[in-house]
Amino acid sequence: MRPAPDLRVYLVTDAAQCRARGRTVTDTVRAAVAGGATCVQVRAKDADGADFLAQVCDVANAVGELVPVLVNDRVDVYLAARRLGAPVAGVHVGQRDLPATVVRELIGDDAYLGLSAANPEALSAAAAEGACDHVGVGAVRATATKADAPTGIGTDGVSRLAADIALPCVAIGGITPADLPALRAGGLAGAAVVSAICLADDPRAAARRLRRAWEAAR
Amino acid sequence: MRPAPDLRVYLVTDAAQCRARGRTVTDTVRAAVAGGATCVQVRAKDADGADFLAQVCDVANAVGELVPVLVNDRVDVYLAARRLGAPVAGVHVGQRDLPATVVRELIGDDAYLGLSAANPEALSAAAAEGACDHVGVGAVRATATKADAPTGIGTDGVSRLAADIALPCVAIGGITPADLPALRAGGLAGAAVVSAICLADDPRAAARRLRRAWEAAR
Repeated sequence: MRPAPDLRVYLVTDAAQCRARGRTVTDTVRAAVAGGATCVQVRAKDADGADFLAQVCDVANAVGELVPVLVNDRVDVYLAARRLGAPVAGVHVGQRDLPATVVRELIGDDAYLGLSAANPEALSAAAAEGACDHVGVGAVRATATKADAPTGIGTDGVSRLAADIALPCVAIGGITPADLPALRAGGLAGAAVVSAICLADDPRAAARRLRRAWEAAR
Repeated sequence: MRPAPDLRVYLVTDAAQCRARGRTVTDTVRAAVAGGATCVQVRAKDADGADFLAQVCDVANAVGELVPVLVNDRVDVYLAARRLGAPVAGVHVGQRDLPATVVRELIGDDAYLGLSAANPEALSAAAAEGACDHVGVGAVRATATKADAPTGIGTDGVSRLAADIALPCVAIGGITPADLPALRAGGLAGAAVVSAICLADDPRAAARRLRRAWEAAR
């Protein structure tokens, strides 16, 4: 099996949420990593390529030597960031993005590749193909962050999904620290959050609460 | 100077316009090439990666051996299409997309790279960098096709822009066959159209009119 990133507390960025709290994405990420976030995915579905590249490089240059920084969807932004010397570590794609097998060919064997998919068949197929090294499963709860997110299936639902997948799984969707015992007991490798950190009054403290809740859940 | 594609009659695709005429993008492109289009750029700013890749491969497999097929913006879709064996020939980027110098590194020396920019300084700088092989200048007329298109500067305006640029220039923006004599006399290497072909009752006849108008304009 390919190595996967440390998924325990996995921050997915949302520029609008950071802005709503008067912070840049990079400030938010830096605080979250200081608080214990173990992985960062930079997501900006509506950004133009140049803006997204700038954001990815900024985040990677800030924390990319401390934790893996993954790029959502845009493989070209990942490749461009690498060309520019930014320490990005991989890519995360969904089922509407480029196929994981082709993405793996484009990013090479040393990059991380995560995949989200809403149904177990797609996830099992992806795992069997061997292109990706971890998968995102959810949503734990329906959330306003992602317009096309699937409906909530709870911590039990994501645990059942994860049990059928041979790769490390990170849960996503409206997760709070209170969910982490059930997720860890259910076999998840970690919890991905957006608003729990991006909209927090104190993103460092929010990441610390999540990390402590994860470590305490044995 | 790098070789540039044949820009004389350059079709930029718009899926919504093709659909409004009851045609697929690929049917429209095939008809346009049969009528005399010399270059095709597949553009789908709002499409997800998987859909865009499918559209690019479909178009390239239909006409990519006859004329150069360029991919708008998404360098990763271009690279993925090549991996899948589709005969795509290059990429077209605007100023909000990935920087041309980085794109050139990602696509290699044998691919075409076009650049659009709204101001002469940006275009001259791009030409001087040596990354791109042709540029798009406009808009000849304001148009509803592209929400963020610059205001119309007429055939005189684009000719003045083109005169300051060391690379072959293709004009864009509300162009009709009647504009082609002025554009060719003004030193343009070709005319790019969207609605003149995608919204035409008969895209093959529309491309033929444009091509004949170009060839007649000496």
